[in-house]
Amino acid sequence: MTHAADIAQSYIALWNETDAGRRQAMLEQSWAKGATYADPLMKGQGHAEIDALVGAVHARFPGFRFDLLKPADGHGDFVRFSWGLGPDHPIKGSDVLVVEGGKIRSVIGFLDQVPSP
Amino acid sequence: MTHAADIAQSYIALWNETDAGRRQAMLEQSWAKGATYADPLMKGQGHAEIDALVGAVHARFPGFRFDLLKPADGHGDFVRFSWGLGPDHPIKGSDVLVVEGGKIRSVIGFLDQVPSP
Repeated sequence: MTHAADIAQSYIALWNETDAGRRQAMLEQSWAKGATYADPLMKGQGHAEIDALVGAVHARFPGFRFDLLKPADGHGDFVRFSWGLGPDHPIKGSDVLVVEGGKIRSVIGFLDQVPSP
Repeated sequence: MTHAADIAQSYIALWNETDAGRRQAMLEQSWAKGATYADPLMKGQGHAEIDALVGAVHARFPGFRFDLLKPADGHGDFVRFSWGLGPDHPIKGSDVLVVEGGKIRSVIGFLDQVPSP
């Protein structure tokens, strides 16, 4: 049984880490080697590509942070949670994580709210 | 690109089908052979086990129906939607489907609302 809260916390911590060296260490510790990430806007496979996705979001939204919007829940090797980006969360989404051997194996992300253009 | 609305509609139709023979035909048509299903209460793999899960829910909630609570959305091979069970939806959940070659390959289900005991 996966500890949903711990997995979600480490996931959000990665997205909030602006230092690429520390991100690399976090990916080694908590993500499977060939981990996959896919949301409606971005996809990547492996630590280097996922690191680049996080870096791209920090470049686009400097100073913004991801927050969990409510406690994560999960069952078996699955975890889900909703998040908000920014000081006042103009962007919100919900992610489902598949965990394997305690590490994040894949991320399926969806957007719940995006700002009007 | 998966047609999220079509996939979700066929998924809900399976859960509303009380005839085991028709369910078998629907599984053949729309679900991959080794498809997996997992929610907090039940899991199964392959058409026969998934058919049995649906049958068990009809046995427990005779006459109840699943409804989509809002339009499905998706990207790539992923579809998500929320559903309600019953005439007045005392039980609600959200599912993520992974599609492969146009057929449902895996279902990751979560419960959003369950009745108080």
